Amino acid sequence: MNFDHDPSDTASRRACSPPAHRRLADSEMDYSQEPTRPLTNFIVRNHKPFNAEPHLDLLVNAGTITPADFFFKRNHGPIPNIHFDQHLVYLGVADTPCNGHGQDNVQWKTFSMHDLMTRWPSVDIAASLQCAGNRRDGLAKVKTVKGVIWGPGTISNAVWTGVRLCTILSDLLNVPKDLLHDMVRTYHVSLEADDHVHEDCCYGSSIPLRKAMDPLGDVILAYKMNGEMLSRDHGAPLRVIVPGYIGARSVKYLQKILLQPNESRSFFQVRDYKILPPWVNSDNADSAWDSTPSLGEMNVQCVICTPSEHCTIKGAGPVSVKGYAISGGGRGIYRVELSLDGGKTWEPVDKIEQTPDPKSGMYWAWALWEKKVPRIRASDEIVARAYDSAGNTQPEMPIWNYRGVMNNAWFRVKDVAQLQPNM
Amino acid sequence: MNFDHDPSDTASRRACSPPAHRRLADSEMDYSQEPTRPLTNFIVRNHKPFNAEPHLDLLVNAGTITPADFFFKRNHGPIPNIHFDQHLVYLGVADTPCNGHGQDNVQWKTFSMHDLMTRWPSVDIAASLQCAGNRRDGLAKVKTVKGVIWGPGTISNAVWTGVRLCTILSDLLNVPKDLLHDMVRTYHVSLEADDHVHEDCCYGSSIPLRKAMDPLGDVILAYKMNGEMLSRDHGAPLRVIVPGYIGARSVKYLQKILLQPNESRSFFQVRDYKILPPWVNSDNADSAWDSTPSLGEMNVQCVICTPSEHCTIKGAGPVSVKGYAISGGGRGIYRVELSLDGGKTWEPVDKIEQTPDPKSGMYWAWALWEKKVPRIRASDEIVARAYDSAGNTQPEMPIWNYRGVMNNAWFRVKDVAQLQPNM
Repeated sequence: MNFDHDPSDTASRRACSPPAHRRLADSEMDYSQEPTRPLTNFIVRNHKPFNAEPHLDLLVNAGTITPADFFFKRNHGPIPNIHFDQHLVYLGVADTPCNGHGQDNVQWKTFSMHDLMTRWPSVDIAASLQCAGNRRDGLAKVKTVKGVIWGPGTISNAVWTGVRLCTILSDLLNVPKDLLHDMVRTYHVSLEADDHVHEDCCYGSSIPLRKAMDPLGDVILAYKMNGEMLSRDHGAPLRVIVPGYIGARSVKYLQKILLQPNESRSFFQVRDYKILPPWVNSDNADSAWDSTPSLGEMNVQCVICTPSEHCTIKGAGPVSVKGYAISGGGRGIYRVELSLDGGKTWEPVDKIEQTPDPKSGMYWAWALWEKKVPRIRASDEIVARAYDSAGNTQPEMPIWNYRGVMNNAWFRVKDVAQLQPNM
Repeated sequence: MNFDHDPSDTASRRACSPPAHRRLADSEMDYSQEPTRPLTNFIVRNHKPFNAEPHLDLLVNAGTITPADFFFKRNHGPIPNIHFDQHLVYLGVADTPCNGHGQDNVQWKTFSMHDLMTRWPSVDIAASLQCAGNRRDGLAKVKTVKGVIWGPGTISNAVWTGVRLCTILSDLLNVPKDLLHDMVRTYHVSLEADDHVHEDCCYGSSIPLRKAMDPLGDVILAYKMNGEMLSRDHGAPLRVIVPGYIGARSVKYLQKILLQPNESRSFFQVRDYKILPPWVNSDNADSAWDSTPSLGEMNVQCVICTPSEHCTIKGAGPVSVKGYAISGGGRGIYRVELSLDGGKTWEPVDKIEQTPDPKSGMYWAWALWEKKVPRIRASDEIVARAYDSAGNTQPEMPIWNYRGVMNNAWFRVKDVAQLQPNM
């Protein structure tokens, strides 16, 4: 496939191939330029690379829109320090399946951050990002898992400002409409970062082209988060936002967009972020990756953020139980139920706040819910579960998988003591 | 909204309002013209109206495409006897929310069956229909439910031939493109049948316009099933096929298509086919309908079709356990697991056969799966569960709801005796 090329058009100037990223040894990783970070809001799981999730009570009390200071941080290498004015995004189409990171036969176009912000209209999309490894700790209790042992805090919600990927693709790619129509059904959009990671040459992922081109899919290239320019920790200068999908597909430090007939071959698409069957472990994972589909849309999830396990609540009187719920693919949260007896009986929560995107009508942002219960006894086991608009709900018990992803078992909180005045 | 009108265009001739359907008393229902039906393949749940599901072993052994003689039959009234050549479908757009069955301010267009079959290209879509009440018997065991006590056989798969609804709407509705673009995000398509039912004036439902207009949504108006003209039991002369949705939305005997800003007000949209919360029963259902969303996409489902509970298998040697699995919204079945010990340990099934639509890539048709197990002991509890492409799986135990819909708990088969040669 060729692009028509107009040399006077700075937003579509023909470019050389994007810079190749050499895979670095762990010892070559340069962590000397990490941004300074206030840490009080976070439980830090790793420093190099930096991985941290907010304390659950802070997260839910921060409200529907998570301020950047409370937004979970997930990295696979040092934070790149990219010069905003010099950053170029490379865009291409491959005729044949791509197996590596270099595609010599692709005719690349590039655009700068300035191009992005001036050439196309920007939109605001409120969308939650959730790491596929959210609640991995629940599976680690069943059996050893591979990955950062996350709690239930690797989810946050922000308003992202950027340009629709479908707008850019329709404008820059001179693919005949009929051909694009066919491509939408089978092609993938490979997304690669301008960074270095421990597992591969750079961070990469892909999404189906159908998701990128869906006018109601709301995939954008975002340069702002909650009205501020993206911080380095959150992908400056540019990250993809793929609403309704696991966070791993919302690639930060975006440098390369390649339409190709196959999924990305990046480690993060083919050797990670898959629900391996429960009979697969470290011994036989190598033989299972290829036959296990990669993750896209999230499943239905629900977490109690407050009170937390083993906590003590001071004072008698009603206790406010709060949490979040979300589903993938734009499916809304239709009900949240709470149990105080370990799941034997259930009651509705008092309120669920979830707002669909005003233009697409899709539920990309989480639901925050709350229920006031008269009191909590030390013997109570508080359990929450949610239902989404497709009638899906959550499994009662964790279903272990080696990578510890997509754990959406009923969320349980035990051992909450409420100090009564007469105690 | 007005249609431009070309009187020479038979396919868009301006029509009077569609015939109003008077609600009949039960005593007025005429069941004297029911089609003759071979019954041996079916468990008949009701004769008037006729409701029957195939025996599970026959269903699964009939193969991926269910012949009409094995396809479940779900009705709410007598089967209409519609004259193919005289049948007209009415199509309109309403500016304001529609509260009843008559919309005097709508400018209707009509098309005949001949128009439909000659004016627009036809497509074949393989899609499974599943009644939302499938497996209601499992919830009826928990507590009394309202509805036909279906087993797990109200699902079948067929190849439907018809015209894409989006093709017809784009062609016949002279709605400016920009306006249609906006309407897609908020409008619904009300679908009404030319029939009489016990619960309302006629059968009706609606789907979001976004589903109807999605080129990958594959909603069609079908006049053929498995290569034969539709039979009366299956909706002759015309039924809507809404792949990925509960069967209730695939309206038979289609007579009226109305684009409107609100969901259908039909009984079957607002007082039926909703997952009422578990604390709602016959006493307080009236207050819960309006606050409970109507069903669209199906949840993830998995059923063991053979062997069946309490059966005796003759002969030693491996036993073939077979079943079906499906999810909604075009999500594929990514894994099916089988347990012989009531869900303590799980193994993969040997094979899962599911074919995405060759054009859209969506999984509208069920997966048939099979596993050979060495033997089955009388004490074994055989359990099956599935996972879909969004990582959703099924709840372990049935979650009761008053209408008994969308039961997708783990499917269990007990008390299977295998006669051994030495017994």
